[in-house]
Amino acid sequence: MTNVTRFPLLVLVGLMLGSLGLGCAERPAKVQRFGQVIGIKKENIAEYKRMHAACWPGVLKNLKDCHFRNYSTWLVEIKPDEYCLFSYYEYTGDDLDKDLAKMKADPVRQEWLKLSDPLKYKLPTAKDGEMWYKGEQVFYMP
Amino acid sequence: MTNVTRFPLLVLVGLMLGSLGLGCAERPAKVQRFGQVIGIKKENIAEYKRMHAACWPGVLKNLKDCHFRNYSTWLVEIKPDEYCLFSYYEYTGDDLDKDLAKMKADPVRQEWLKLSDPLKYKLPTAKDGEMWYKGEQVFYMP
Repeated sequence: MTNVTRFPLLVLVGLMLGSLGLGCAERPAKVQRFGQVIGIKKENIAEYKRMHAACWPGVLKNLKDCHFRNYSTWLVEIKPDEYCLFSYYEYTGDDLDKDLAKMKADPVRQEWLKLSDPLKYKLPTAKDGEMWYKGEQVFYMP
Repeated sequence: MTNVTRFPLLVLVGLMLGSLGLGCAERPAKVQRFGQVIGIKKENIAEYKRMHAACWPGVLKNLKDCHFRNYSTWLVEIKPDEYCLFSYYEYTGDDLDKDLAKMKADPVRQEWLKLSDPLKYKLPTAKDGEMWYKGEQVFYMP
Protein backbone atom coordinates (compact mmCIF):
# COMPACT_ATOMS: atom_id res chain seq x y z
CA MET A 1 0.00 0.00 0.00
CA THR A 2 1.42 3.40 -0.91
CA ASN A 3 1.40 6.40 1.36
CA VAL A 4 -1.26 7.97 -0.86
CA THR A 5 -3.70 5.11 -0.33
CA ARG A 6 -2.82 4.73 3.35
CA PHE A 7 -3.57 8.36 4.24
CA PRO A 8 -7.37 8.32 3.78
CA LEU A 9 -7.58 4.86 5.39
CA LEU A 10 -5.86 6.01 8.57
CA VAL A 11 -7.91 9.19 8.75
CA LEU A 12 -11.01 7.01 8.38
CA VAL A 13 -9.92 4.83 11.29
CA GLY A 14 -9.50 7.95 13.39
CA LEU A 15 -12.87 9.31 12.28
CA MET A 16 -14.59 6.11 13.35
CA LEU A 17 -12.84 6.03 16.73
CA GLY A 18 -13.57 9.70 17.30
CA SER A 19 -17.21 9.30 16.38
CA LEU A 20 -17.65 6.38 18.74
CA GLY A 21 -15.91 7.87 21.68
CA LEU A 22 -14.30 11.18 22.39
CA GLY A 23 -16.82 13.57 20.91
CA CYS A 24 -19.82 12.21 22.77
CA ALA A 25 -18.28 11.37 26.11
CA GLU A 26 -20.71 13.85 27.68
CA ARG A 27 -23.75 12.09 26.25
CA PRO A 28 -24.02 8.60 27.77
CA ALA A 29 -26.79 6.29 26.65
CA LYS A 30 -28.28 5.89 30.11
CA VAL A 31 -30.06 8.99 31.40
CA GLN A 32 -32.58 9.40 34.20
CA ARG A 33 -34.77 12.46 33.90
CA PHE A 34 -36.38 14.44 36.70
CA GLY A 35 -38.98 17.18 36.93
CA GLN A 36 -39.73 18.86 40.25
CA VAL A 37 -41.64 21.89 41.47
CA ILE A 38 -41.63 24.26 44.43
CA GLY A 39 -43.39 27.50 45.36
CA ILE A 40 -41.87 30.99 45.40
CA LYS A 41 -43.34 34.19 46.82
CA LYS A 42 -43.49 37.12 44.42
CA GLU A 43 -41.24 39.24 46.66
CA ASN A 44 -38.45 36.63 46.45
CA ILE A 45 -38.36 36.23 42.68
CA ALA A 46 -35.86 39.01 41.97
CA GLU A 47 -33.34 37.67 44.49
CA TYR A 48 -33.80 34.09 43.26
CA LYS A 49 -33.12 35.21 39.69
CA ARG A 50 -30.09 37.24 40.76
CA MET A 51 -28.58 34.30 42.66
CA HIS A 52 -29.22 31.78 39.89
CA ALA A 53 -27.90 34.02 37.13
CA ALA A 54 -24.56 33.93 38.98
CA CYS A 55 -24.62 30.53 40.64
CA TRP A 56 -21.49 29.78 42.67
CA PRO A 57 -18.93 27.73 40.69
CA GLY A 58 -18.62 25.34 43.64
CA VAL A 59 -22.35 24.57 43.54
CA LEU A 60 -22.17 23.84 39.81
CA LYS A 61 -19.02 21.73 40.26
CA ASN A 62 -20.72 19.67 42.96
CA LEU A 63 -23.73 19.01 40.70
CA LYS A 64 -21.44 17.98 37.82
CA ASP A 65 -19.33 15.78 40.12
CA CYS A 66 -22.55 14.05 41.20
CA HIS A 67 -23.45 13.34 37.54
CA PHE A 68 -26.23 15.89 37.08
CA ARG A 69 -26.44 17.84 33.82
CA ASN A 70 -28.76 19.80 31.50
CA TYR A 71 -30.35 21.42 34.54
CA SER A 72 -32.86 24.21 33.90
CA THR A 73 -35.28 26.03 36.18
CA TRP A 74 -38.43 27.77 35.00
CA LEU A 75 -40.52 30.42 36.68
CA VAL A 76 -44.25 30.00 36.11
CA GLU A 77 -47.17 32.08 37.33
CA ILE A 78 -49.70 29.36 38.09
CA LYS A 79 -52.41 31.83 39.08
CA PRO A 80 -52.36 35.62 39.29
CA ASP A 81 -49.60 36.46 41.81
CA GLU A 82 -49.02 32.77 42.63
CA TYR A 83 -45.65 31.48 41.43
CA CYS A 84 -43.82 28.19 41.14
CA LEU A 85 -40.37 27.12 40.06
CA PHE A 86 -40.09 24.03 37.91
CA SER A 87 -36.74 22.28 37.47
CA TYR A 88 -35.83 19.74 34.81
CA TYR A 89 -32.54 17.86 35.02
CA GLU A 90 -30.79 14.70 33.94
CA TYR A 91 -28.75 12.19 35.94
CA THR A 92 -26.13 10.09 34.20
CA GLY A 93 -24.47 8.25 37.08
CA ASP A 94 -24.83 4.66 38.26
CA ASP A 95 -25.84 5.22 41.88
CA LEU A 96 -28.35 8.00 42.47
CA ASP A 97 -28.60 7.50 46.25
CA LYS A 98 -24.83 7.68 46.62
CA ASP A 99 -24.58 10.79 44.42
CA LEU A 100 -27.45 12.50 46.24
CA ALA A 101 -25.71 11.84 49.56
CA LYS A 102 -22.48 13.25 48.12
CA MET A 103 -24.34 16.29 46.80
CA LYS A 104 -26.00 17.03 50.14
CA ALA A 105 -22.75 16.60 52.10
CA ASP A 106 -20.99 19.35 50.15
CA PRO A 107 -20.29 22.35 52.43
CA VAL A 108 -20.41 24.87 49.55
CA ARG A 109 -23.87 23.62 48.58
CA GLN A 110 -24.98 23.83 52.20
CA GLU A 111 -23.91 27.50 52.35
CA TRP A 112 -25.73 28.16 49.06
CA LEU A 113 -28.94 26.59 50.36
CA LYS A 114 -28.81 28.71 53.53
CA LEU A 115 -29.33 31.67 51.20
CA SER A 116 -31.56 30.18 48.51
CA ASP A 117 -33.85 27.83 50.45
CA PRO A 118 -35.61 30.67 52.34
CA LEU A 119 -36.61 32.17 48.98
CA LYS A 120 -38.77 29.13 48.17
CA TYR A 121 -41.62 27.40 49.95
CA LYS A 122 -42.57 23.75 49.96
CA LEU A 123 -45.85 22.88 48.24
CA PRO A 124 -48.52 21.35 50.50
CA THR A 125 -48.41 18.25 48.27
CA ALA A 126 -44.64 17.68 48.64
CA LYS A 127 -43.59 14.54 50.51
CA ASP A 128 -42.43 14.70 54.12
CA GLY A 129 -38.73 15.45 54.27
CA GLU A 130 -38.52 16.74 50.69
CA MET A 131 -38.35 20.41 49.75
CA TRP A 132 -39.37 19.88 46.11
CA TYR A 133 -42.46 18.07 44.84
CA LYS A 134 -41.24 15.35 42.47
CA GLY A 135 -43.28 15.21 39.25
CA GLU A 136 -44.35 12.00 37.55
CA GLN A 137 -43.09 11.65 33.98
CA VAL A 138 -46.05 10.99 31.68
CA PHE A 139 -44.47 11.55 28.25
CA TYR A 140 -41.08 11.33 26.61
CA MET A 141 -39.80 11.82 23.08
CA PRO A 142 -36.01 11.55 22.55
CA MET B 1 8.77 11.30 8.30
CA THR B 2 8.59 7.50 8.42
CA ASN B 3 5.42 5.48 8.15
CA VAL B 4 5.78 4.59 11.84
CA THR B 5 5.67 8.22 12.93
CA ARG B 6 3.00 9.15 10.39
CA PHE B 7 0.50 6.52 11.58
CA PRO B 8 -0.38 8.02 14.99
CA LEU B 9 -0.42 11.52 13.48
CA LEU B 10 -3.01 10.58 10.86
CA VAL B 11 -5.17 8.70 13.34
CA LEU B 12 -5.01 11.79 15.56
CA VAL B 13 -6.20 14.00 12.69
CA GLY B 14 -9.12 11.64 12.18
CA LEU B 15 -9.90 11.53 15.90
CA MET B 16 -10.06 15.32 16.01
CA LEU B 17 -12.32 15.52 12.96
CA GLY B 18 -14.55 12.75 14.27
CA SER B 19 -14.83 14.36 17.68
CA LEU B 20 -15.83 17.67 16.15
CA GLY B 21 -18.34 16.37 13.71
CA LEU B 22 -19.72 12.98 12.84
CA GLY B 23 -20.34 11.50 16.26
CA CYS B 24 -22.39 14.36 17.57
CA ALA B 25 -24.49 15.19 14.56
CA GLU B 26 -27.56 14.73 16.80
CA ARG B 27 -26.27 17.23 19.35
CA PRO B 28 -25.93 20.61 17.68
CA ALA B 29 -24.29 23.41 19.64
CA LYS B 30 -27.29 25.70 19.28
CA VAL B 31 -30.26 24.64 21.40
CA GLN B 32 -33.25 26.67 22.57
CA ARG B 33 -34.94 25.33 25.68
CA PHE B 34 -38.57 25.69 26.65
CA GLY B 35 -40.63 25.03 29.77
CA GLN B 36 -44.39 25.38 29.71
CA VAL B 37 -47.30 24.52 31.97
CA ILE B 38 -51.03 23.81 31.68
CA GLY B 39 -53.78 22.58 34.00
CA ILE B 40 -55.40 19.14 34.02
CA LYS B 41 -58.48 17.97 35.89
CA LYS B 42 -58.05 14.92 38.07
CA GLU B 43 -60.66 12.97 36.09
CA ASN B 44 -58.66 13.42 32.85
CA ILE B 45 -55.27 12.28 34.13
CA ALA B 46 -55.73 8.57 33.37
CA GLU B 47 -56.72 9.24 29.74
CA TYR B 48 -53.90 11.76 29.27
CA LYS B 49 -51.38 9.21 30.54
CA ARG B 50 -52.85 6.48 28.34
CA MET B 51 -52.67 8.65 25.22
CA HIS B 52 -49.13 9.86 25.91
CA ALA B 53 -47.76 6.43 26.75
CA ALA B 54 -48.71 5.45 23.18
CA CYS B 55 -48.36 8.72 21.30
CA TRP B 56 -49.15 8.42 17.57
CA PRO B 57 -46.00 7.92 15.44
CA GLY B 58 -47.17 10.72 13.12
CA VAL B 59 -47.29 13.19 16.00
CA LEU B 60 -43.75 12.26 17.05
CA LYS B 61 -42.52 12.40 13.45
CA ASN B 62 -43.99 15.87 13.02
CA LEU B 63 -42.23 17.11 16.19
CA LYS B 64 -38.93 15.62 15.03
CA ASP B 65 -39.34 17.07 11.53
CA CYS B 66 -39.87 20.48 13.15
CA HIS B 67 -36.57 20.11 15.09
CA PHE B 68 -37.98 19.44 18.54
CA ARG B 69 -36.29 16.85 20.75
CA ASN B 70 -35.76 15.67 24.35
CA TYR B 71 -39.42 16.39 25.11
CA SER B 72 -40.75 15.31 28.48
CA THR B 73 -44.01 16.04 30.29
CA TRP B 74 -44.43 15.92 34.06
CA LEU B 75 -47.57 15.60 36.15
CA VAL B 76 -47.47 17.66 39.34
CA GLU B 77 -50.06 18.04 42.09
CA ILE B 78 -49.68 21.73 42.88
CA LYS B 79 -52.25 21.62 45.68
CA PRO B 80 -54.40 18.77 46.98
CA ASP B 81 -56.49 17.64 43.98
CA GLU B 82 -55.16 20.47 41.79
CA TYR B 83 -52.94 19.25 38.96
CA CYS B 84 -50.67 20.71 36.30
CA LEU B 85 -48.66 19.31 33.43
CA PHE B 86 -45.19 20.73 32.90
CA SER B 87 -43.37 20.15 29.61
CA TYR B 88 -39.67 20.63 28.94
CA TYR B 89 -38.34 20.43 25.39
CA GLU B 90 -35.48 21.55 23.17
CA TYR B 91 -35.51 23.16 19.73
CA THR B 92 -32.51 22.75 17.44
CA GLY B 93 -33.70 24.38 14.21
CA ASP B 94 -32.87 27.75 12.68
CA ASP B 95 -36.36 29.21 12.30
CA LEU B 96 -38.72 28.62 15.22
CA ASP B 97 -41.65 30.54 13.74
CA LYS B 98 -41.45 28.57 10.51
CA ASP B 99 -41.19 25.24 12.34
CA LEU B 100 -44.08 26.11 14.67
CA ALA B 101 -46.24 26.95 11.64
CA LYS B 102 -45.25 23.65 10.03
CA MET B 103 -46.02 21.80 13.26
CA LYS B 104 -49.47 23.36 13.60
CA ALA B 105 -50.37 22.74 9.95
CA ASP B 106 -49.89 18.97 10.28
CA PRO B 107 -53.25 17.17 9.92
CA VAL B 108 -52.17 14.23 12.11
CA ARG B 109 -51.25 16.62 14.91
CA GLN B 110 -54.58 18.38 14.49
CA GLU B 111 -56.44 15.09 14.92
CA TRP B 112 -54.34 14.28 17.98
CA LEU B 113 -55.14 17.65 19.57
CA LYS B 114 -58.87 17.15 19.00
CA LEU B 115 -58.55 14.27 21.47
CA SER B 116 -55.89 15.56 23.84
CA ASP B 117 -56.65 19.29 24.12
CA PRO B 118 -60.01 18.74 25.90
CA LEU B 119 -58.14 16.84 28.63
CA LYS B 120 -56.23 20.00 29.61
CA TYR B 121 -57.28 23.47 30.64
CA LYS B 122 -55.53 26.77 30.07
CA LEU B 123 -54.18 28.49 33.18
CA PRO B 124 -55.69 31.92 33.94
CA THR B 125 -52.20 33.39 33.56
CA ALA B 126 -51.59 32.00 30.04
CA LYS B 127 -51.34 34.56 27.24
CA ASP B 128 -54.26 35.19 24.90
CA GLY B 129 -54.18 32.74 22.01
CA GLU B 130 -51.82 30.30 23.76
CA MET B 131 -52.91 27.04 25.36
CA TRP B 132 -49.78 26.62 27.48
CA TYR B 133 -48.27 29.13 29.89
CA LYS B 134 -44.67 29.69 28.78
CA GLY B 135 -42.25 29.66 31.71
CA GLU B 136 -39.31 32.01 32.07
CA GLN B 137 -35.93 30.30 32.31
CA VAL B 138 -34.13 31.48 35.46
CA PHE B 139 -31.30 28.94 35.68
CA TYR B 140 -29.26 26.74 33.42
CA MET B 141 -26.35 24.36 33.94
CA PRO B 142 -25.16 22.40 30.86
